[in-house]
Amino acid sequence: MTASTIPHLVDHASLIVHGPDQPGIVSEVASLVTRNGGNIISLDQYSDDASGGAFFQRIVMHRPGLAAALPEIEADLDATLAPMGLEWRLRDMSEPLRVAILASKSDHCLLDLLWRHRRGELPVTIPMVISNHTDVAEDVRSFGVPFFHVPSQQGPDKSQSEAEILKLVQGNVDFLVLARYMQVISSDFLTKAAVPVINIHHSFLPAFIGAGPYRKAKERGVKLIGATAHYVTEDLDEGPIIEQDVVRVTHADTAADLQSRGADVERAVLSRAVTWHAQDRVIRHGNHTIVFNS
Amino acid sequence: MTASTIPHLVDHASLIVHGPDQPGIVSEVASLVTRNGGNIISLDQYSDDASGGAFFQRIVMHRPGLAAALPEIEADLDATLAPMGLEWRLRDMSEPLRVAILASKSDHCLLDLLWRHRRGELPVTIPMVISNHTDVAEDVRSFGVPFFHVPSQQGPDKSQSEAEILKLVQGNVDFLVLARYMQVISSDFLTKAAVPVINIHHSFLPAFIGAGPYRKAKERGVKLIGATAHYVTEDLDEGPIIEQDVVRVTHADTAADLQSRGADVERAVLSRAVTWHAQDRVIRHGNHTIVFNS
Amino acid sequence: MTASTIPHLVDHASLIVHGPDQPGIVSEVASLVTRNGGNIISLDQYSDDASGGAFFQRIVMHRPGLAAALPEIEADLDATLAPMGLEWRLRDMSEPLRVAILASKSDHCLLDLLWRHRRGELPVTIPMVISNHTDVAEDVRSFGVPFFHVPSQQGPDKSQSEAEILKLVQGNVDFLVLARYMQVISSDFLTKAAVPVINIHHSFLPAFIGAGPYRKAKERGVKLIGATAHYVTEDLDEGPIIEQDVVRVTHADTAADLQSRGADVERAVLSRAVTWHAQDRVIRHGNHTIVFNS
Amino acid sequence: MTASTIPHLVDHASLIVHGPDQPGIVSEVASLVTRNGGNIISLDQYSDDASGGAFFQRIVMHRPGLAAALPEIEADLDATLAPMGLEWRLRDMSEPLRVAILASKSDHCLLDLLWRHRRGELPVTIPMVISNHTDVAEDVRSFGVPFFHVPSQQGPDKSQSEAEILKLVQGNVDFLVLARYMQVISSDFLTKAAVPVINIHHSFLPAFIGAGPYRKAKERGVKLIGATAHYVTEDLDEGPIIEQDVVRVTHADTAADLQSRGADVERAVLSRAVTWHAQDRVIRHGNHTIVFNS
Repeated sequence: MTASTIPHLVDHASLIVHGPDQPGIVSEVASLVTRNGGNIISLDQYSDDASGGAFFQRIVMHRPGLAAALPEIEADLDATLAPMGLEWRLRDMSEPLRVAILASKSDHCLLDLLWRHRRGELPVTIPMVISNHTDVAEDVRSFGVPFFHVPSQQGPDKSQSEAEILKLVQGNVDFLVLARYMQVISSDFLTKAAVPVINIHHSFLPAFIGAGPYRKAKERGVKLIGATAHYVTEDLDEGPIIEQDVVRVTHADTAADLQSRGADVERAVLSRAVTWHAQDRVIRHGNHTIVFNS
Repeated sequence: MTASTIPHLVDHASLIVHGPDQPGIVSEVASLVTRNGGNIISLDQYSDDASGGAFFQRIVMHRPGLAAALPEIEADLDATLAPMGLEWRLRDMSEPLRVAILASKSDHCLLDLLWRHRRGELPVTIPMVISNHTDVAEDVRSFGVPFFHVPSQQGPDKSQSEAEILKLVQGNVDFLVLARYMQVISSDFLTKAAVPVINIHHSFLPAFIGAGPYRKAKERGVKLIGATAHYVTEDLDEGPIIEQDVVRVTHADTAADLQSRGADVERAVLSRAVTWHAQDRVIRHGNHTIVFNS
Repeated sequence: MTASTIPHLVDHASLIVHGPDQPGIVSEVASLVTRNGGNIISLDQYSDDASGGAFFQRIVMHRPGLAAALPEIEADLDATLAPMGLEWRLRDMSEPLRVAILASKSDHCLLDLLWRHRRGELPVTIPMVISNHTDVAEDVRSFGVPFFHVPSQQGPDKSQSEAEILKLVQGNVDFLVLARYMQVISSDFLTKAAVPVINIHHSFLPAFIGAGPYRKAKERGVKLIGATAHYVTEDLDEGPIIEQDVVRVTHADTAADLQSRGADVERAVLSRAVTWHAQDRVIRHGNHTIVFNS
Repeated sequence: MTASTIPHLVDHASLIVHGPDQPGIVSEVASLVTRNGGNIISLDQYSDDASGGAFFQRIVMHRPGLAAALPEIEADLDATLAPMGLEWRLRDMSEPLRVAILASKSDHCLLDLLWRHRRGELPVTIPMVISNHTDVAEDVRSFGVPFFHVPSQQGPDKSQSEAEILKLVQGNVDFLVLARYMQVISSDFLTKAAVPVINIHHSFLPAFIGAGPYRKAKERGVKLIGATAHYVTEDLDEGPIIEQDVVRVTHADTAADLQSRGADVERAVLSRAVTWHAQDRVIRHGNHTIVFNS
């Protein structure tokens, strides 16, 4: 039990199972948990088509002596689920995922994550914050989190700064969060980072794709503005959506008002997405997400 | 297959299991479904305390030839779950529940239910609407639903009109809905009716218990008004809450405005509560409800 | 006072003033109301830029003997506001606007408007409902509203059916509502109808422009779906937005679920937009709306 | 122009007028603004009864050279409005109101206010934070705000600690904010402080008055929990409500979950109430508030 262990989750594991739907999966998995000494604490499942669709399941189980038993359970999962064509992920929930946060000058999303983390609401470890500016450095350090400044390069070739970031995060974190990081991530970076990257987009996607969404929202005269947390893919603003929310605005709100009111939605949406990801509640499937957040 | 059968739910059963939590319930129930030829379509579960609490589960299963197999499955449920101290309810979902709606003069909740029913959104049969007034008679009949007028009596003794209503509903319906029925139901009536009774209260309970909630809300100067759907118990406005919602109001809204805006919330909340009850998504537990509506 | 007069609005007028912002407009207009024997009941104003922007004002005034005094007040408005370059609209609020509703097969938006009208919530007269199908005919007539069937033509040339509709509405109504009317309106029709046309689009515009928004929303995996009421212009789905709202959905909702849940949002959004338009609360300005709905 | 001047509000004044409704008030006030060289930037008004009710108005005016002209405008307001029995308040909006924040151990409401203030969203000066605990001291100081520790006394007699707080705030601030300050304020303190005091109550008042609202909410099984910002009066939890909001919860949320989810609502509701108060948007009237926040 290391310093970062989450005490109330000791001996708790999350198990994600997905693959082609077929009769008897729930029964098969439940039996497996039982015969391995586990007790199912919560169970969510979803099939996108009862006949021939894809099946998704998240189980939280309690298993005294979990750490020692993991290899055995994993072997049983392999033996049982592989013949059914099912994939699975088993994780000791007492070990928080490690996340690096990338930010620029805006502090609202970043500070909300750091504050929730300190409050014990975010089941993650935050080994570092990386920014292409130094504006947020002092705030980050006041939370006891290491801050790294990696300036971004001009022009389309960002290979050098991306290489620097990769040096910091590769093999060191389980996922990345872009907390209003105002740089486009290259597909080469995504490949090399090889971990999920969560971004917060300051619009209700797919409305107002690209830059300047609040200005575009003002121009179009919408009555609600929103924010979208999504996984980053090669296609800008097109990755699988994890969470969205909106807030009401009026004709009297200026583009600056939209930005200020939107900031509250952005931080709320991003913190929910990060929490759910860190609790293994989000399963990617094609360009969609299954979110077991009830 | 009778006229009222719901085609897409043929061979689908809902199974509710609840009782003292203990290791292995999910596995036991899942095995039972599998060995009885069923496939689990959806599964929700909840335990109010992992060690020694109460366990609740709702399963929807698909089982070809369900109708003929029910007795056998029920026998297996008895044999398997009784020793574990668990209670269960199995229901063929293709047979819609029968509901009698009681109303007074207000039509908004009543019409919304009738309209949703005609639209195919409410999986129920509505054999009758009963009212202590005749205002809504014509509307009800235009939906092809029988209307019965049972005037209410003055004073506290409502035994005669309640007896008349009982004659209409006893053994004839699976639950009752009070769609803004402005009469207090006696505990004697509840006992004799012996079916769940759902009421819509025009406030965000427990605020503004009793009569005149919109007037009270105006007096208190609240900034949101709401509505609450709950099961009726002997204690007026104190029964288990099924669903609630609110809408924003301002100082400029009169008590009449609150009533008009509240009407929209009332009909939305009641229709959700009725739908969930009719889909066996609501489990009563003490003065609470477990609502599996995700 | 005709049959359709709204009693509690007798002697009430709405006055809309808009044009280039300049010091003293509020004072000038308020003085005008006072010297014409009126009392200001409510006043909303908005300037999109305090220095050199556009000014918008809505006043509701009470003026005993309004009907007889209108010509005199109008003459004063002309004399006072024209030199300031301001436009104005004065209307006796006791005379409800006349609206023709166009529908197709879907009944939810149509029935909601008819029901609110009967309930006294919509300050309009509905002289007719026109549909390119006959599905809703009986329902419409049960509300005592004349129904006209105007089949739509195949292909891009809809001139004949549009001509038929124009014959019914020209000079006969103050605005049109497309209550899920599934036909594209030609710009020629808009010109000839010469009245505002309000449409309800079943998405949170500008997301999912065009046909099949619920299918597109499902494909994109959004977590909220919405509806948008807007004025119809030559550019499909691009007209000034009056009102929008959304509802939360999950991965488990099918495209059919989205459609069903969206229907509730559509009818709510459209009824608000129609009410506000009928109360002279909406001012068009370029491709925007100023909505004084507080 | 002192260090704390708000640049974009230089030469802007808010004018609140209220008293018995009567014809011509709007016109009279608008003329007054014009003849004193002001231009009306925004205007809100409300009358709780057009015949014989109370009238409320908020004007924001722009007046070059405002500071020097204030005495003259005030004299005119006195001369003009006193005969009509109207009260008024005129304030130079470029001078932020001074607020002292009282807190205990919880940091969420406090930090949100400090963060919004630093971000420029709260038009106030915060000369001090006072707490009966030292937990939040370091955070407060990191924002450059003075922190004072005033331990609370045991028992009902809090006169000594209240006297200490009074020494800090009397004549020094324009209002007080109780940001989850877990001490009951005596009516004696309220009298002596002689400034408005805003409290955040962690329930949707009037539901769950008193202590432990999240526990009570869990016991009652509500489906929404909320928070209420109100002015503090002698009657605990009974003062005029400024703002409220709610968030959806389920049977699966523990009392601790309610507390955590409620914290987000509390900070949002309190920050809105404080902002509106600081912008002179809230008028108290009996036990109600008129909030001009559109």
